[in-house]
Amino acid sequence: MKHLLAVDWGTSSLRGAWLDATGKVLEERSFDRGILSVAPGEFPVVFQACFGNWMANPGALCLMSGMVGSRQGWLEAPYCACPAGFAEVAAQLAWVEPGRIAIVPGLACEHEGLPGADRTATPDVMRGEETQIFGALRLLGLEDALMVLPGTHSKWVRVRDGRIQSFSTFMTGEFFALLRQHSILSRTLPAADGGVDRAAFEQGVAMALRGPSLLHTAFSVRTLALFERLPAEAMPSYLSGLVIGEELRAQALPAGAHVVVIGSPALTQRYQTALALQGASVQGVGAQAAWTGLWAIAQTLPPALSKAA
Amino acid sequence: MKHLLAVDWGTSSLRGAWLDATGKVLEERSFDRGILSVAPGEFPVVFQACFGNWMANPGALCLMSGMVGSRQGWLEAPYCACPAGFAEVAAQLAWVEPGRIAIVPGLACEHEGLPGADRTATPDVMRGEETQIFGALRLLGLEDALMVLPGTHSKWVRVRDGRIQSFSTFMTGEFFALLRQHSILSRTLPAADGGVDRAAFEQGVAMALRGPSLLHTAFSVRTLALFERLPAEAMPSYLSGLVIGEELRAQALPAGAHVVVIGSPALTQRYQTALALQGASVQGVGAQAAWTGLWAIAQTLPPALSKAA
Repeated sequence: MKHLLAVDWGTSSLRGAWLDATGKVLEERSFDRGILSVAPGEFPVVFQACFGNWMANPGALCLMSGMVGSRQGWLEAPYCACPAGFAEVAAQLAWVEPGRIAIVPGLACEHEGLPGADRTATPDVMRGEETQIFGALRLLGLEDALMVLPGTHSKWVRVRDGRIQSFSTFMTGEFFALLRQHSILSRTLPAADGGVDRAAFEQGVAMALRGPSLLHTAFSVRTLALFERLPAEAMPSYLSGLVIGEELRAQALPAGAHVVVIGSPALTQRYQTALALQGASVQGVGAQAAWTGLWAIAQTLPPALSKAA
Repeated sequence: MKHLLAVDWGTSSLRGAWLDATGKVLEERSFDRGILSVAPGEFPVVFQACFGNWMANPGALCLMSGMVGSRQGWLEAPYCACPAGFAEVAAQLAWVEPGRIAIVPGLACEHEGLPGADRTATPDVMRGEETQIFGALRLLGLEDALMVLPGTHSKWVRVRDGRIQSFSTFMTGEFFALLRQHSILSRTLPAADGGVDRAAFEQGVAMALRGPSLLHTAFSVRTLALFERLPAEAMPSYLSGLVIGEELRAQALPAGAHVVVIGSPALTQRYQTALALQGASVQGVGAQAAWTGLWAIAQTLPPALSKAA
């Protein structure tokens, strides 16, 4: 293989990295061109505008992951069923241009259904996170792990023998934004988030961990403000603690759990703080996990494609 | 006492009832003039426009409950602390015009604080519901009850020996509206709610009762749509079941619990359906609970005021 263009094309952002034959990142670019901003049929044009000069290199290969493989993306890449290992995902690439541009499939997983007559399996899905997960496993040299990829829709993932066994989505980041911007609580919160107030954040986490539900604990933002027990500028950190704490409460982690957090340094820091309140230890992996995952998939391509690449 | 004008003045609506000396409702009026629509200082003008002709009757008395007694209302009525009985609430009226117009105080209750150094009591509050609760206790002849007042901010209330011991707020109606209108799930939902799809509603309740959190179960609206396992027109009922089921999960009701539901017939019906899935029985009380509560408070006024009234 010569060079690899690794692309993480999500709902609201587009990131690309140019890797040499050894997997070293030579350059990165990011654009405000998530798939929601791209009209149907315009994906090739946007791709060319963002990465055309890199792809002009003879033998360049591009692998993409994320919502670009969804029904609203460039080309729909059918989901791989869990449990799924690195090899299955790598074998089911959806080729946009054979030998040149491919999309990594997302994963689907069936949660246990309801007992009795109401038996209805509830599916869960991810796109893009699977690539970061396989990248993180390589970076950390792990085959078994409990992982979380925090964000708008956080994913909690169980990996055994190098295979993703199951995962669950939590709409944590989206609930924060809804409460922050559109709920009655927004009247209590200052316009800007400011820095993280660690004490207020931890107070929110502790409140949420006691349960019983965010439906109830969220109301404390209003009452703590009403009785002036927490200053307005601490409220965004408190609310952040409430939603992240609710996500952690739902995991019912055993004592001394070890959790791999894949995400930005700022979010990883918040999860580390919150997990520490539960006595869990944390190992953090940054955004390079996506590049490592895509590069590893590129290495598995059959000789014909490797040659083309 | 001659006549009583009973007023329930909330955040988004204003309702009044004209009662004779026996407590019989002679006429009701409702207006789109919740306190959010009333500028500071304009409460007397709005009150006069809505109820002036009733209050022109010699000796007419007006008792009001709801957010009209909040800091953003006509006159702030300090909260009564729980446990609180009917007598305490009736004795702490805030008089807008002595002997003529008064506001019933709301209730505050302290949830247990956190242990250790982080000990921070978390208050909870209600305004207006206390009056409905005392009215419902009279209507049903009860001294002990577990009650729920469903709505934008549902209240779960424990009554013992005729006194409100404690209560908890759940932002159920507001979370439904946020998810319905502003979240990514709104793209999956039809514009109109349509009628209640009972099977979909019950499926949502059952999903939520299994837990672990609405942060996770809400995502199933998206995936059930993605895999076409539930038609779009059933989704609003399913989502309604998810949020109400989450509220019920948080109560951890014992088997065979009996719950008094105070609310509109439509909401009471949904809660009855959801509670039945947990084996609980339901007794419903409608909007007249507010009038009964205000009339009962009027009966307690000291002779001087009773004479004035």
